[in-house]
Amino acid sequence: MEWFIEASDNYGLMIRVRKKLYEFKGLQHIEIYDTVFGKMLVIDGYVQFIERFEASYHEMLAHVPMLTHPSPKKVLIIGGGDGGTAREVLKHDPDEVVMVEIDRNVVEACRQHVGIDKGALDDPRLTLLIENGIEYVKNCDEKFDVLIVDGTDPSPASEPLFSPDFYRACSRISDIYAMQSQSPVLQEKEFRTVLRNTAVFRERRVYLSYIPMYPGGIWSFLIASDSSLNVELDKIRRRFEERRIETEYYTPEVHVAAFTLPRWLENIVREMGLEV
Amino acid sequence: MEWFIEASDNYGLMIRVRKKLYEFKGLQHIEIYDTVFGKMLVIDGYVQFIERFEASYHEMLAHVPMLTHPSPKKVLIIGGGDGGTAREVLKHDPDEVVMVEIDRNVVEACRQHVGIDKGALDDPRLTLLIENGIEYVKNCDEKFDVLIVDGTDPSPASEPLFSPDFYRACSRISDIYAMQSQSPVLQEKEFRTVLRNTAVFRERRVYLSYIPMYPGGIWSFLIASDSSLNVELDKIRRRFEERRIETEYYTPEVHVAAFTLPRWLENIVREMGLEV
Repeated sequence: MEWFIEASDNYGLMIRVRKKLYEFKGLQHIEIYDTVFGKMLVIDGYVQFIERFEASYHEMLAHVPMLTHPSPKKVLIIGGGDGGTAREVLKHDPDEVVMVEIDRNVVEACRQHVGIDKGALDDPRLTLLIENGIEYVKNCDEKFDVLIVDGTDPSPASEPLFSPDFYRACSRISDIYAMQSQSPVLQEKEFRTVLRNTAVFRERRVYLSYIPMYPGGIWSFLIASDSSLNVELDKIRRRFEERRIETEYYTPEVHVAAFTLPRWLENIVREMGLEV
Repeated sequence: MEWFIEASDNYGLMIRVRKKLYEFKGLQHIEIYDTVFGKMLVIDGYVQFIERFEASYHEMLAHVPMLTHPSPKKVLIIGGGDGGTAREVLKHDPDEVVMVEIDRNVVEACRQHVGIDKGALDDPRLTLLIENGIEYVKNCDEKFDVLIVDGTDPSPASEPLFSPDFYRACSRISDIYAMQSQSPVLQEKEFRTVLRNTAVFRERRVYLSYIPMYPGGIWSFLIASDSSLNVELDKIRRRFEERRIETEYYTPEVHVAAFTLPRWLENIVREMGLEV
């Protein structure tokens, strides 16, 4: 048994692996490992998910925007090739989910070797497009109730996903927008870039999740909209019950608590012009 | 520059170190390193704190019980040789703090090479006793408003700190009791042991903090009492303001949100007989 290591300059995460199940170098470098915590997807050296911990990412990325919307019928997912986000979105029984993933190999590798999508990738309500999400959003003339960006860490290839132009295009075609916005501790610079570049939305809020598969364990998300993001706990609870959602990590109470930020993070978020 | 590694069987944490500032093998193996995130104390191979992240541990361990009590004047700390917990406790201006640390070398090493106590260890309101905390509590005939156990990970040496006998003795001499209770993800067994063995207290609740310096990043604490632990946010806010506490991580809102547990953890806690 060996260690898989994901290390930045000063901080690293080690996960014991039992076996490499899959590897492919194409558009991206895809690896799938078997670990004590279940299967693990790695793209370009970064852990994308480990089965044991993935609910804390996919549920929080999907249910917070989906339950902020009173009735999300049409949903767009950019990225998310493993199908985890699609799986959670489909629990809300939308009419239509469009998922735009740039790398067919991620989809195929996960479908064949992992299966965290639990059938979502083959669900008749889901349309999977293998194309560039940025181009898709730019040229899109439809409107979506919820748009979720489930992207990888910023890299030269994914950088346009963090640009003001992209966010402007997203705001044009969606009611509620949500994305993962990196570690506010270990990637403060990237986190601040997201806050700086999303100013096009009228309302924005940051929320958190405990994610042991990402370095530092504290992970941030951004939810944004041109209308109000304030939804009371009672309403979230009612929607959650009406839609009969079952979860491992998320609860309506966790939803609300996730917006409570530690003092130091509250300070950063305020400094960047958001309300806390 | 090298990596310091703290690894269990399946999960590990790597922190880049610039230099080893101190090392001593006595009762415990004490190491102090200089890192990009400030100074780091390691005992018996386990990271105790890194300056950049320590507020998320010491503030949550101290302020939650201290603000649950209406007027904590007499406080007992077991362990906590680095002085971080004492520093936070003293912000509440108690009349008397007794700190019982078993290893004088930890105190001296931190005083000389780190200083996160910010003078707390030399504060006239603090009495530092270098002795066995378990014996101290067993033989104690005083009463404390708040008792905080700031101990290391379970080991053959620290095991009695996790025993029903010790908790019974603690409940006898304190109004409000609090302790760190390990990672509920990566040390579920140890976490469950704490819940099993603390049943002597009439009320118990689990709360969480984001602590990037501990493996997995999600860390648990237990607060317990024979009287009610329910304090409303308004009351916590008022106490926090009246006592003019300044913090880096803790806020009254974080205090309340920290008790909201992810579904899977809520299930464990309920299964162990606690209220959620």
